[in-house]
Amino acid sequence: MAITAAEPEAAATARSFGPAVALSCRECEERYDLGPRFACEFCFGPLEIAYDFGTVTRASIERGPKNIWRYADLLPVPADVASLPNMNPGLTPLVRADRLAAELGLRSVHVKDDSGNPTHSFKDRVVAIAVEAARTFGFRTLSCSSTGNLAGAVGAAAARAGFDSCVFIPAGLEEGKVVMAAVYGGKVVALDGHYDDVNRFCSELIGDSAGEDWGFVNVNLRPYYAEGSKTLAYEIAEQLGWRLPEQIVIPIASGSQLTKIDKGFRELIALGLVEDRPYKVFGAQATGCSPVARAWERGHDVIQPVKPDTIAKSLAIGNPADGPYVLDICARTGGAVAHVSDAEVVDAIKLLARTEGIFAETAGGVTTGVLRKLAAEGVLDPGAETVVLNTGDGLKTLNAVDSGVTATIKPSLDAFKDAGLL
Amino acid sequence: MAITAAEPEAAATARSFGPAVALSCRECEERYDLGPRFACEFCFGPLEIAYDFGTVTRASIERGPKNIWRYADLLPVPADVASLPNMNPGLTPLVRADRLAAELGLRSVHVKDDSGNPTHSFKDRVVAIAVEAARTFGFRTLSCSSTGNLAGAVGAAAARAGFDSCVFIPAGLEEGKVVMAAVYGGKVVALDGHYDDVNRFCSELIGDSAGEDWGFVNVNLRPYYAEGSKTLAYEIAEQLGWRLPEQIVIPIASGSQLTKIDKGFRELIALGLVEDRPYKVFGAQATGCSPVARAWERGHDVIQPVKPDTIAKSLAIGNPADGPYVLDICARTGGAVAHVSDAEVVDAIKLLARTEGIFAETAGGVTTGVLRKLAAEGVLDPGAETVVLNTGDGLKTLNAVDSGVTATIKPSLDAFKDAGLL
Repeated sequence: MAITAAEPEAAATARSFGPAVALSCRECEERYDLGPRFACEFCFGPLEIAYDFGTVTRASIERGPKNIWRYADLLPVPADVASLPNMNPGLTPLVRADRLAAELGLRSVHVKDDSGNPTHSFKDRVVAIAVEAARTFGFRTLSCSSTGNLAGAVGAAAARAGFDSCVFIPAGLEEGKVVMAAVYGGKVVALDGHYDDVNRFCSELIGDSAGEDWGFVNVNLRPYYAEGSKTLAYEIAEQLGWRLPEQIVIPIASGSQLTKIDKGFRELIALGLVEDRPYKVFGAQATGCSPVARAWERGHDVIQPVKPDTIAKSLAIGNPADGPYVLDICARTGGAVAHVSDAEVVDAIKLLARTEGIFAETAGGVTTGVLRKLAAEGVLDPGAETVVLNTGDGLKTLNAVDSGVTATIKPSLDAFKDAGLL
Repeated sequence: MAITAAEPEAAATARSFGPAVALSCRECEERYDLGPRFACEFCFGPLEIAYDFGTVTRASIERGPKNIWRYADLLPVPADVASLPNMNPGLTPLVRADRLAAELGLRSVHVKDDSGNPTHSFKDRVVAIAVEAARTFGFRTLSCSSTGNLAGAVGAAAARAGFDSCVFIPAGLEEGKVVMAAVYGGKVVALDGHYDDVNRFCSELIGDSAGEDWGFVNVNLRPYYAEGSKTLAYEIAEQLGWRLPEQIVIPIASGSQLTKIDKGFRELIALGLVEDRPYKVFGAQATGCSPVARAWERGHDVIQPVKPDTIAKSLAIGNPADGPYVLDICARTGGAVAHVSDAEVVDAIKLLARTEGIFAETAGGVTTGVLRKLAAEGVLDPGAETVVLNTGDGLKTLNAVDSGVTATIKPSLDAFKDAGLL
């Protein structure tokens, strides 16, 4: 490991990570002590958290805080996590979307609207877990490579928890995302290139002395960070009345979120918290960055990297690390991976706004667009209970929609009537 | 009354408004049946909701939904309100702000962060109540005069609940607010003038046949609408562990929110839900629109209207209807009304972001700025438990802060080290 972190690692105790007991290689199952590691030393596979869950009941969860810490017994965090300074995301609305469902010819649709998180994207969930790991390991600076939402989530969480922060983004991101990353007072460094270049840069930095005492939430803290996405699965099931949805549409950037929602569903089944019944997972990409959907269409199990060209910048990862796992999950559950054009993304943002009053980021346009497409093609079962994720906020991608005032007039009744607006 | 609403009114039954029993004039106490009225026919005083509360306990509230409908027994809404299509706002975070408190030399500060609402301002609370009244009265179109946040809240709520909408804003609002108002598909009409001109226009429209079957949430539905702000008081008390704060800093636009939070606290005391102990209410304005603060400074009980000139556009009401009531409440509770300059607003936005990871709208900069000012001046008791409101979201007033990237560089370690960022 390039990380020199003997001192930080020494600070961690078993209790620092609650029910988590080890890191385990997703490929070869080699185990490691819980530390700031992310790749297997033997096969270079990604490391995941391994747990030894105690007794967890619906009642014990329902008694918990009204945020993700109600699921602390299922996460790599200390039992007293709710008392520590953290953004405390989660328990975002699961919106019953009857008007959207009617328009698409579906019986039951719910929108899991993660724009309700503190910095208005699902990234607050994953960062919240990474912050606890960074605290345990004694890191002083939080960092990340980001397509925008993560930078804001890291900036805010670092401020709340008292870390320094330095985040890396591709140049040319939406203004809302840049300001939201910078306003918390940390450093925001734009790199000339795509997200994949930013990611590569961070991997170099982490191997250099300059970055050795930094907690990169999505690199050396990634095993912890990624577990935050499981809370989406837990919340959806709890909010449906402790039931898994029959179909779920999830966006794909790196693919991590989709794999962790699947993991969360399987944990709930294994713990007896929900009935074991089939669910189908559908992955959604923008056509301009659809390496996983292309592999799916072609029946390949290897992802061919692409150079992203889409307005859905938060999903613009051309070389998605978890792509192969996504293909596995969609195949295993009987789902699919599909993509929609930028024009369809914009239409879908407006559809969701017009029918349900939810102003989604472009990523939410991708999932809603894929929902519409797969419903029209008959790939989705119209009678099955369906959940679609909105992972971000339209306010951060204002330029995607051309909405503006209907008219500007003088403030008089005559002017109003003359304007032909009635 | 100019409103012709015999048919809508007939649809209302006692149960449509839960514990509400009448409209009552705030000035002369004349009573009216619950209907789309807002001013007393005798003295032109504002009408308020009068209640006959049943038994309400902490336990009955805590068993309720995780939104404002947990307080349905204290609001003019039907008992089954949680099952109707509505934005379901509320239960936003009450953030323990230890780092902010330390920087201001205060013992205990909490930020009530209403940017967590569905359209990211407290306006979702008031609109949620107005929507239920509009539904009961049979209105088909929702409307409002707005400084921006309300337009978005009305647009979204109308979409969710299946109303048409047509909202009126002053020309020149922030882009985020305009797009957020328009994206839901309703009409957004900008009027050349200030908010007070927009408000005057809406009063004319409501007296005209063109607007007679419209529900103007903050005009003919105002008695219902305004009650939504009480939920801020309920939530703060519940989230503090069923206790009133000793000091609270509230922004003043029309002044309605401040009066309703005070009303909510008094109801909680009267119902035995919290201990009856003193609390001080502090009102906050921007210097560029500070008619209430000026009256306070001069010891006047009449508000002299002003022409607003401030970046805090959501508070830019030069002729605040509830100004005199605000003066009464701040005097009665031992509080004060104060104002801060636009530069102090921006500094306060950055202070709150840097210490707590909360990106506030300019209105939140006004309250945080006044908190800082009154703490420095010794007007606030540093040892008392203090709550400050953030009523909106920084993403909607991006231009107020000049935050941007720290540097743009090539994606290489050498470039990073050369940039002098370490």
